[in-house]
Amino acid sequence: MKVQVLYSGGQDSSLAAVMLETFFDVELVTCTFGSDAWKHAKKAAAAIGFPFSTVKLGPEVMDECIDLILKYGYPRYGINAVHKRALEALAAGGAKYISDGVRRDDHSPTLTMPEIKSLEDSYGVSYIRPLAGYGRHAIDTMVREHFEVAEGPAIEKSDYESEIRSSIKRQFGEKTEKRLFPVEHAQSRVTRRL
Amino acid sequence: MKVQVLYSGGQDSSLAAVMLETFFDVELVTCTFGSDAWKHAKKAAAAIGFPFSTVKLGPEVMDECIDLILKYGYPRYGINAVHKRALEALAAGGAKYISDGVRRDDHSPTLTMPEIKSLEDSYGVSYIRPLAGYGRHAIDTMVREHFEVAEGPAIEKSDYESEIRSSIKRQFGEKTEKRLFPVEHAQSRVTRRL
Repeated sequence: MKVQVLYSGGQDSSLAAVMLETFFDVELVTCTFGSDAWKHAKKAAAAIGFPFSTVKLGPEVMDECIDLILKYGYPRYGINAVHKRALEALAAGGAKYISDGVRRDDHSPTLTMPEIKSLEDSYGVSYIRPLAGYGRHAIDTMVREHFEVAEGPAIEKSDYESEIRSSIKRQFGEKTEKRLFPVEHAQSRVTRRL
Repeated sequence: MKVQVLYSGGQDSSLAAVMLETFFDVELVTCTFGSDAWKHAKKAAAAIGFPFSTVKLGPEVMDECIDLILKYGYPRYGINAVHKRALEALAAGGAKYISDGVRRDDHSPTLTMPEIKSLEDSYGVSYIRPLAGYGRHAIDTMVREHFEVAEGPAIEKSDYESEIRSSIKRQFGEKTEKRLFPVEHAQSRVTRRL
């Protein structure tokens, strides 16, 4: 049984991969809009020892995302839309089990239960969120025991945000980009499995 | 790191144990109101190779449960209340990580997110639901690959329901018991790890 896990190189999707490997053949998959940001994820995938591939999302997905971010004035719904399209891309590619590193307490990216049911029914796929039953403290402890992680605002990983921000900056300027993404989240990239 | 998993001997709590063993020292714990129904769970725990213990719930928990079942006319809220008390009993016993076999699509037993946060904050505990991110198809497949399971309406396991039903039957008669529990759920007990 093979599962494809949407992968950023960060600690959450890396932990999801380790959680699944008891039961599945895990393949890590990073979405790309065409930049080479996926290379950070490839490096992390190699560091923790899982096969890796990429899936290309079309420019219409980026447009939909940016429209939503501009409409609401913050990233949440745009990021959610990209995540949903990414899962659909895996399902459309023939995967029977698709997965990600979304946590119990995450607000974004996250699918609602009706969206999850619709995704599963439309594509005949099982969508697994291995971290959905775990709170922050448990996840932090498990990550600490199993991975060496590089952390800090300047750490490069392959999440959607970097490509989306670059595109917004290109189209609407740095001022708009900074307004829509005011908070610099602490980034993490997994560098080794312990 | 030790985790205590509420255990019935059924496939879901057995799967939860296997999911957690990569990260934790797993101990299976079965609740009892005083009958010897826990012995079925002990047998299943031995069959899949995890340490086992029991925790006694007081008669006031049974009373609370039966009051709720009589009030609503169906078992859901009563079973939920017992499950919450069982998790509290583990937390009060000093466990730092507590867990169960509740699925994504289960209606009962299940805690709401505010109840989960309250449990974690009140006791300084992490409550983990390993199956919370998995739908029915994925779980059924994983169970089939990892366990031999005895199934059928007459299979004895150590869930709350059997002791609660016995108590209702004793206090209010068989007619009331049958009215409150009209559906005979298919039971399962794990007999071997594959």
